[in-house]
Amino acid sequence: MQNLTLQLAENILSTDFDRLPPEVVREARRGFFNWLGVAIGACRHETIDILISMAGFAGAKEQASVLGREEKTNIFFAALINGTSSHTFDFDDTHLDTILHPSAPVAPAALAVGEYYGLSGKEVLAAYALGVEVACRVAVAICPSHYSLGWHVTGTAGVLGAAAAAGKLLGLDARKMAYALGIAAAQPVGLREMFGTMTKPFHPGKAAMNGLMSAWLAKEGFTSSERALEAPAGYLKVMAPEYDAAKINSGWGERFEILANSYKPYACGVVAHPVITGVVALREKYNLKPEDVAGIEAQVNHWVLKLMGKESPQTGLEAKFSTYHCAAVGLIYGRAGERQFSDEVVKDERTVALRKKVKLITDEKMREDEARVRIILNDGRVLEEYVGHAKGSRENPMTDKELEDKYRDLVAGILPPAKIEDSVRLAWDMENLADVRDLVRACCP
Amino acid sequence: MQNLTLQLAENILSTDFDRLPPEVVREARRGFFNWLGVAIGACRHETIDILISMAGFAGAKEQASVLGREEKTNIFFAALINGTSSHTFDFDDTHLDTILHPSAPVAPAALAVGEYYGLSGKEVLAAYALGVEVACRVAVAICPSHYSLGWHVTGTAGVLGAAAAAGKLLGLDARKMAYALGIAAAQPVGLREMFGTMTKPFHPGKAAMNGLMSAWLAKEGFTSSERALEAPAGYLKVMAPEYDAAKINSGWGERFEILANSYKPYACGVVAHPVITGVVALREKYNLKPEDVAGIEAQVNHWVLKLMGKESPQTGLEAKFSTYHCAAVGLIYGRAGERQFSDEVVKDERTVALRKKVKLITDEKMREDEARVRIILNDGRVLEEYVGHAKGSRENPMTDKELEDKYRDLVAGILPPAKIEDSVRLAWDMENLADVRDLVRACCP
Repeated sequence: MQNLTLQLAENILSTDFDRLPPEVVREARRGFFNWLGVAIGACRHETIDILISMAGFAGAKEQASVLGREEKTNIFFAALINGTSSHTFDFDDTHLDTILHPSAPVAPAALAVGEYYGLSGKEVLAAYALGVEVACRVAVAICPSHYSLGWHVTGTAGVLGAAAAAGKLLGLDARKMAYALGIAAAQPVGLREMFGTMTKPFHPGKAAMNGLMSAWLAKEGFTSSERALEAPAGYLKVMAPEYDAAKINSGWGERFEILANSYKPYACGVVAHPVITGVVALREKYNLKPEDVAGIEAQVNHWVLKLMGKESPQTGLEAKFSTYHCAAVGLIYGRAGERQFSDEVVKDERTVALRKKVKLITDEKMREDEARVRIILNDGRVLEEYVGHAKGSRENPMTDKELEDKYRDLVAGILPPAKIEDSVRLAWDMENLADVRDLVRACCP
Repeated sequence: MQNLTLQLAENILSTDFDRLPPEVVREARRGFFNWLGVAIGACRHETIDILISMAGFAGAKEQASVLGREEKTNIFFAALINGTSSHTFDFDDTHLDTILHPSAPVAPAALAVGEYYGLSGKEVLAAYALGVEVACRVAVAICPSHYSLGWHVTGTAGVLGAAAAAGKLLGLDARKMAYALGIAAAQPVGLREMFGTMTKPFHPGKAAMNGLMSAWLAKEGFTSSERALEAPAGYLKVMAPEYDAAKINSGWGERFEILANSYKPYACGVVAHPVITGVVALREKYNLKPEDVAGIEAQVNHWVLKLMGKESPQTGLEAKFSTYHCAAVGLIYGRAGERQFSDEVVKDERTVALRKKVKLITDEKMREDEARVRIILNDGRVLEEYVGHAKGSRENPMTDKELEDKYRDLVAGILPPAKIEDSVRLAWDMENLADVRDLVRACCP
């Protein structure tokens, strides 16, 4: 693989907004919008407070905004903070073939540069799409062996996507773009051991910061290798016991990995999603109320009880490992967003009562995204829904309307109502924005 | 290896200055002093200018000094910049068993915190010694397979040393120290592919910054794993195909890796050092002048011609790969410091003329640190010096006087003469400094 990194750099530079197919632009718009929601939604988490206090301690120019908050900081800390925030709820997007969460490291780097320079929505959206493409292609090249070894691919491949997106917006030439990728390749972030701690969402945040710094340094003349990915002591060989270098550039401009990106409709582990999909579908179809329901039964894949079989969760965090809780809130609220995993909802009488009526039956034939849900009513009727593919899966993606509902649910109480309307409108119309600062302003209270 | 990381954290916390043996304190003092010289020496390099401009762009409180310069910046950027500067000339220290350069990532993190809080020399020196110990022990545990794979161990193990040193000075408890090590473990820096570019010295600089940030975050309540090193998806397994976890804590307080640290007397690849050692010895012994010399002949290890066999270098950088040049400047100047590898010296008539008189003969029996040097005088006399172990090797370490000469050579022209005297005096007396800011002030013009 001669000149793999340089070729990648040239591919990034030769692909502008106008060369992206409409379905890629659509998915970029959806992905960016979904990212805004999860970043704003977690902005008051303690994890974010600590990072903001670090920026304050260090002192920083007010160059870019912390989404959902009033603080501004420099572009590097903004990338760190918004990237971390967007992965804090584990509610962001997932590239299905690699379990990479591509937006968390890429979008904050692109947006920070876009806000600082007042760039157009088209420019930022294209840079984001290209950054996602780079992160996903690197992940495809090194996974699954890279992930199996213990790396958290979101931060390790994400840093290259962040450098690509930032470098594109900073106007690097091919050599400097290769250098930016090189500086970034030397700074991967993320071990799977950190899952369950604040360091997990820090991985994509720090990857965003590292990638953005790499692009900034390359722009200013900092030198690096032009062969960071393919060299014998380079990124690919070092990061993965097995890798396929050809995946990085092959079919560039024809195959787009962003089309394999997916969004979580529910703020919990993906194995519970088929049950929630079924419960919510029956609720909508029959306009069900919790007081009508005598029982909920579901035939499920074997992983459901192993991974999410907690019967009586006491906290929001425990509820994320309880399919019983998921089914109950699905029926009561018609959704299972971050809000439905608060301690209050977990302890609510209605939730507790309905949770006890849920029965899960492992069915060895059920796939992971499949379930059969039966709701038994007090009047003896039995309603049944077969879920072939859970909402959010490749075969049953979230609609634009559902993404919008998810966004509204995440930002409610953080943004004032008028800003919610503004931000929804501007995010859907991102490619016609003359200046992304209009969108950013709508995303801060 | 249960509780390996926590045990390491407790070891770090239980070892204060008073528990360090005198020979460890002595080596820490020498190592820190050597580090100051190389950091100040490279402070005007373009690499450092770019990093300083990044700090200026980002905006930063004036918390700590850039050594050798007038700029101040926040502690994180100070760690980045001073760490990068100290590795820019490839003239810093080397832990002989692992090729780790331990001071570059560790010392700047310790000094930034020390300067910010006005800590004592004892505190900073102990934290530095412990950080070096952690970095070296991690390197011993994962090398050589880690380095062979392509990692630049100085930045990948160094980040843990930086976190340890900073965490010690920030007063972390054992759990927070384990968290600091965990956050740092997720942020290794450095690929060997970057050698020969600005990104190489950036590795320890960024490791210093990452390690310091990790300690700062842990102090403020940021959570991480307590098992970052030993966990199945943790640092050791991920970073090295083969590793020996027992090396991390075994013999703590008895075996000190800092005693295997060494200092380069000459600012070029180590394989040329035996020849320079011999030439300089003969020059001193016989008070030789270049005009007396008809020829220089040396029997050398086989790597010398393979790695450093450039006969007619045209630039300072090329001269670093020319043992011919090294021998010539050794005779003309009695040294081969950074200054002797400037473009001016390379092009100087006297150097060019003497370089042509150097003859190198490979001797398969010669070890890497061995050489036999003959100088043939114009009057026909032949002077011979057998070098059993090159200056700077384990068996022939640099004396305090030689370290001081190296320091003076590096900082001349950067610090005013009075500050050179002050800094030499304060560095040698570091453990009696009430406030390390006195030393830092002496290290800035």
